[in-house]
Amino acid sequence: MPKPIDQRKAPPEVRAVFDDIKRTRNVPEVNNFWKYLARDPALLERTWSSVKATMAPGALDPLVKEMIYLAVSVTNGCEYCTFSHTAAARKKGMSDAMFMELMAVVGLANQTNRLSDGLRMDVDPQFIPRG
Amino acid sequence: MPKPIDQRKAPPEVRAVFDDIKRTRNVPEVNNFWKYLARDPALLERTWSSVKATMAPGALDPLVKEMIYLAVSVTNGCEYCTFSHTAAARKKGMSDAMFMELMAVVGLANQTNRLSDGLRMDVDPQFIPRG
Amino acid sequence: MPKPIDQRKAPPEVRAVFDDIKRTRNVPEVNNFWKYLARDPALLERTWSSVKATMAPGALDPLVKEMIYLAVSVTNGCEYCTFSHTAAARKKGMSDAMFMELMAVVGLANQTNRLSDGLRMDVDPQFIPRG
Amino acid sequence: MPKPIDQRKAPPEVRAVFDDIKRTRNVPEVNNFWKYLARDPALLERTWSSVKATMAPGALDPLVKEMIYLAVSVTNGCEYCTFSHTAAARKKGMSDAMFMELMAVVGLANQTNRLSDGLRMDVDPQFIPRG
Amino acid sequence: MPKPIDQRKAPPEVRAVFDDIKRTRNVPEVNNFWKYLARDPALLERTWSSVKATMAPGALDPLVKEMIYLAVSVTNGCEYCTFSHTAAARKKGMSDAMFMELMAVVGLANQTNRLSDGLRMDVDPQFIPRG
Amino acid sequence: MPKPIDQRKAPPEVRAVFDDIKRTRNVPEVNNFWKYLARDPALLERTWSSVKATMAPGALDPLVKEMIYLAVSVTNGCEYCTFSHTAAARKKGMSDAMFMELMAVVGLANQTNRLSDGLRMDVDPQFIPRG
Repeated sequence: MPKPIDQRKAPPEVRAVFDDIKRTRNVPEVNNFWKYLARDPALLERTWSSVKATMAPGALDPLVKEMIYLAVSVTNGCEYCTFSHTAAARKKGMSDAMFMELMAVVGLANQTNRLSDGLRMDVDPQFIPRG
Repeated sequence: MPKPIDQRKAPPEVRAVFDDIKRTRNVPEVNNFWKYLARDPALLERTWSSVKATMAPGALDPLVKEMIYLAVSVTNGCEYCTFSHTAAARKKGMSDAMFMELMAVVGLANQTNRLSDGLRMDVDPQFIPRG
Repeated sequence: MPKPIDQRKAPPEVRAVFDDIKRTRNVPEVNNFWKYLARDPALLERTWSSVKATMAPGALDPLVKEMIYLAVSVTNGCEYCTFSHTAAARKKGMSDAMFMELMAVVGLANQTNRLSDGLRMDVDPQFIPRG
Repeated sequence: MPKPIDQRKAPPEVRAVFDDIKRTRNVPEVNNFWKYLARDPALLERTWSSVKATMAPGALDPLVKEMIYLAVSVTNGCEYCTFSHTAAARKKGMSDAMFMELMAVVGLANQTNRLSDGLRMDVDPQFIPRG
Repeated sequence: MPKPIDQRKAPPEVRAVFDDIKRTRNVPEVNNFWKYLARDPALLERTWSSVKATMAPGALDPLVKEMIYLAVSVTNGCEYCTFSHTAAARKKGMSDAMFMELMAVVGLANQTNRLSDGLRMDVDPQFIPRG
Repeated sequence: MPKPIDQRKAPPEVRAVFDDIKRTRNVPEVNNFWKYLARDPALLERTWSSVKATMAPGALDPLVKEMIYLAVSVTNGCEYCTFSHTAAARKKGMSDAMFMELMAVVGLANQTNRLSDGLRMDVDPQFIPRG
C-alpha cells in the first residue's frame, strides 16, 4: 500500500489542504492520517472538507463531537483513530475522569447492544416515531 | 428464546428491580429490554445496577452519555438500542439538529476508521502517551 | 437478489445436497438458508460439506459448538442466524438457563473487548505464547 | 489515555478488588486489564463483580464459558482479549485440538452470518418462538 | 428520529441536490436515503457530493465500485444498504451468477479474517511495504 | 495458541495441501496463514479447497474478487488480511490509483451504512425483489 507523502514534495493542491488543516487546527504539521490520504488528492480534499464541516461548533459542542468520534473508533477497534481522537479530545478539555466515564458508557452500550440482539427484543411501540 | 416476562407474574426480586427502574426514571412501566432480561433475575439485577451507576451524572452530563450510547448502538447496527436510546436522548433534551449532527459524526468516524485501517497508518508518536 | 429455490424444481446436484442435509439432521425439509444458497450449487455444496465437517462431534461437543456458533451470530447482529442457531441449540439440549448464561457471557465479552480496545492495553507477557 | 496503576500505590478500594481477584483466581498478581480499569475504581469494582458472577459455574461449565468469551473476542478482533482468554481457557483445560475446533466454528459462523445477511433470508417460521 | 422529507415541501437547497441526483442517475425520484438525510441540508449536500465523486468512473469501473460497496454493506449487516446497492449493481449489469460469486467471496473473507485474528498470525515480511 | 508449522516437519496430508497451494499460485513457499491453519490438517484442507474454488475465474474476474476480499478485510479491521490481500491484489494488477479508489469506496460505504442504520430508514419498495 502507498506510503505517506513527504510534505515538502507534495503537489500544490495537497499543500493547500495541508495549509488549511494547520491553520484551522493551529498545529505546525499535519498528522499521518492526512499524509497517507494525500496519495489521492481528491480523496484528501473531500475528507478534509467533510471533517472540517462536521466537527465545527454547531448544535453540539466540539468536545462532545470529539468524544462521540472516539466512542465509535473504540467500538470499531481502530487503533490509529483511538490514539488520535483521544489526543484530540484531551486537547479540547477531556479529563481523565471524563475519559474513564466515556469508556464505561462505550463498554456498557456494547454489552446491552448484544443482549438486545441475542434476545431478539421487540421494540416498544412508544419508541417508534410516528410519521 | 425466552419471551419477556409478564410484570404481574414476576418473582419478588424481579419486581424490586422493576420498581427501582420506574422510580429512577419516573416511568409508569419498564420497557421491553428489562422484561426480557428478567428471565435471568441475577443478570437483570447486575445489568440494571451497572446502567444506573454508569448513566448517572458524573464528569459527563447525562445527555452526553446518552448520545455516546446511541453512537455505539448505531455503529453496531442494533435496532432495539437505536430506537430506545434515541427516545431516551430526546427525553433528555436532544433536538432534531443535535440528532442529525450526531449522525454526521458517527458516519464520518466510521468512514475514517476504515481509511486508517485500510492504509495501515503508523500512529504519530505525539499521540502515544508516555508512561 | 435471487429468491430461495423450490425444492421440487431443484437440479439433481442440489437435490443430492438437500437429501444429505435431511438425512444427517433427520429433518423432513431443509431450512431457508440452504434454499437460498442453492442458487449457486457449487457454493451450496462447499458450504454444506464445511458445516457438516465442522459441526460433527470432535474435541468439542456438538452442543458446545452450537452455542459458540450462536455467540458469534449474536455478536454480528445476524437475525437469521440468531433465530436458527438458537433453535438448533435448543434441539441439542440448551435449556433456558443455559441460553441466558450464554447471553450474559456474550454481553460481558463485548463490553470488556471494547474496554481493552479503548484503553489500548499492553498484552501481559505471560499471555503471549513462546515459539 | 491513562496508564495502568502501580499496585503498590493503589488506593484501598482498588487493593480490595485486586485481592479478591487474586484469591478467586489463585494468581500472584492481577493482569493488565485490571490495572488499567483501576483508574476508575467504581468501574473496576462493577466490572470485576460482573465478571466474577458471570463466569462462575452455573448451567454452563466454566471452560465452555471461557471458550464462548474467546469466540466473541476473536469475532470482534480484540487483540488483548484474544490473548488473555486463550490463556484462561488453556488453564481451564482447552487443548490444542479444542482450540482449533473453536476457531473452525468461529470462522464458519462468520462466513454463514454474512451469507444470510447478504441474501436477506426470510426466517423459517419454525425458528420463531411462539409467545 | 426525524422522518423523511416530503419532496414537494423541501427547501430550495434540498431540491437542488435532489435534482442533481435525479439528473445524474436518470431516475424520476430520489430514494429514501436522500429524503432522510435532507433533514440536515448540509449533510445531504456533503454526502451526495462525496457519493457522486467517489462512484464516478475512474481507475475502477462503476460496477466494480458498486459491488465493493455491496460487499461492505453485507459485512456490516446493513439492511437498507444491502437492498439498495444490490438494486444499483443490478442496474449496472450484475447478473445472478456475479451476485452469488460476490456473496461467496464476502463469506470466505469474513471466515478467514477471523481465523487470522484468532490465531494472531504474524504478517509475512514480504507483505509489508518498504518505505 | 498453537504456533505455525515448520514445513519440513509437516505430515504428508499437510504437505500435499502446501504443494497444491505453491503450484496453483506459483510461489516458492506458502504464507503464514497456511502454516498456522496446518495445526488442524482437516481445517487446512477445507479452507484451501474453498479458497481455491471461490477465487478462481468465474462470473467475476480474479482481480475484482481480490479487491472485494480486501474491502471486507479492511471493514473488519483485520491486519493480517489487509496486508496479505493488498499484496495479492497488487500481484494481480491493482495500481496505486485503483487501491486509493477502493479505499474511498470502502470508507464511503462504512459511512452511509451507519447513516442508514442510525436513521432507521424504510427500504424503498422498488429495491425489494418480488418472488
